[in-house]
Amino acid sequence: MVFKRSFRVHWVDTDIAGVMHFSNFFRYFEACEEEFYRSLSLPLTEIRDRFGVMLPRVEVRCQYKAACRFDEPIDVSLKVRGVEEKTISYDFQVVRQSDGKLAAEGFVKCIAVNSEWKAIPLPAEVARTLSNNIS
Amino acid sequence: MVFKRSFRVHWVDTDIAGVMHFSNFFRYFEACEEEFYRSLSLPLTEIRDRFGVMLPRVEVRCQYKAACRFDEPIDVSLKVRGVEEKTISYDFQVVRQSDGKLAAEGFVKCIAVNSEWKAIPLPAEVARTLSNNIS
Amino acid sequence: MVFKRSFRVHWVDTDIAGVMHFSNFFRYFEACEEEFYRSLSLPLTEIRDRFGVMLPRVEVRCQYKAACRFDEPIDVSLKVRGVEEKTISYDFQVVRQSDGKLAAEGFVKCIAVNSEWKAIPLPAEVARTLSNNIS
Amino acid sequence: MVFKRSFRVHWVDTDIAGVMHFSNFFRYFEACEEEFYRSLSLPLTEIRDRFGVMLPRVEVRCQYKAACRFDEPIDVSLKVRGVEEKTISYDFQVVRQSDGKLAAEGFVKCIAVNSEWKAIPLPAEVARTLSNNIS
Repeated sequence: MVFKRSFRVHWVDTDIAGVMHFSNFFRYFEACEEEFYRSLSLPLTEIRDRFGVMLPRVEVRCQYKAACRFDEPIDVSLKVRGVEEKTISYDFQVVRQSDGKLAAEGFVKCIAVNSEWKAIPLPAEVARTLSNNIS
Repeated sequence: MVFKRSFRVHWVDTDIAGVMHFSNFFRYFEACEEEFYRSLSLPLTEIRDRFGVMLPRVEVRCQYKAACRFDEPIDVSLKVRGVEEKTISYDFQVVRQSDGKLAAEGFVKCIAVNSEWKAIPLPAEVARTLSNNIS
Repeated sequence: MVFKRSFRVHWVDTDIAGVMHFSNFFRYFEACEEEFYRSLSLPLTEIRDRFGVMLPRVEVRCQYKAACRFDEPIDVSLKVRGVEEKTISYDFQVVRQSDGKLAAEGFVKCIAVNSEWKAIPLPAEVARTLSNNIS
Repeated sequence: MVFKRSFRVHWVDTDIAGVMHFSNFFRYFEACEEEFYRSLSLPLTEIRDRFGVMLPRVEVRCQYKAACRFDEPIDVSLKVRGVEEKTISYDFQVVRQSDGKLAAEGFVKCIAVNSEWKAIPLPAEVARTLSNNIS
């Protein structure tokens, strides 16, 4: 399943080239991910507070295909690519609403850690919910 | 009139103290301002493209009253305080939805400039629309 | 005494207007403040770890006088304005090296809090060191 | 050849997890890149003003190996991996000075565009200088 959220490019996201700075796409990926977990009734605050788990990134990638300009509406979509014992990976796409053009494609892999930053298995409920979301 | 928009504090907005970094309140003020102009049917892109006018800040202030935590919903409200020949000033408030507590009060004053960054009178349509919004 | 550090405006600090985004001046104020405490042999990490004290902001202000462009060298100066029982306030200036022009003047006031975010008196050593720095 | 610059992690770079936010590593890569071009006597402002060329990113990657904490000194190194007709790619490493541990490995590929954002060959002087830097 694909989870999608719409955003607008803020002034502060742009740079002197007149377009969204490349690093800010990762902010939008993350904002979309935060909403995704909320949509599963498993907000990240709950994953932290109930299970003592955080999900720091171990790998990220992004390919940029077209620029995003100030104030333009964009659709950010998230798809769970894989769930392993301790890791989750997502694919992201950013599409410009104005012309339907793909602006960026990203990949993010995160790992479950406890409060001492030791990698641990994903909480069963999280793993199960995400796995159901894939199929 | 008060214009209000709701946001959630993103992970990237927080700092090691576990709360929203003070500088990021200005990002939310600005995001609210962008939506405010859109609500007036005068989006900032149009003010730029139709009138050749940008609105850089000449003064900003913020007082912090209570912390905003990750993922918590906040209401940001904007009120036009004054419209002068070349300047616009706004008052902002950030309120935590959870307990209705005032988290921050801000002030932003901007000035109309043309593409050479010379201060110029506000376009009449912008001045009139904002003035109507005050009363 | 005035504490001064030089920086260059990074690409990511600029916005579509081709100049440093107003909110980023606060990042430079803070970077200068971090170096200031280090110069006093009281780095903020030590204030936190030895005294259990953090210094969140309660009020900030900035007036913008001239734009700062990509890659241009700027001098950021910090002057302790006041030290009270629980608070410290600083004045900041940003000067463009190219023409010596004042780009921005800022003010930041912070308050000592313990790990429960309760306001507490400044550690005596911090208060004394800062007071010596004023005179 | 490897180009290296030292930085310290600023408070604003950290997040609620107490470490540098993953997206901010790209800010440091870019800051290092800006200094790299200056060290070649080809600052990015000159590449823009003399040749009319900007270098937007087409692909970025980062793998995170160890966390970077507030105020800790880090070495960021840049190595030109390849120079093609229109593109430049770099490898980056972030190493913690405290323990010499590799914190992150990154990759950035950018493309030469003119002021209309059309991909064009790298200016000969830029291509030559970078190619000399590889060997």
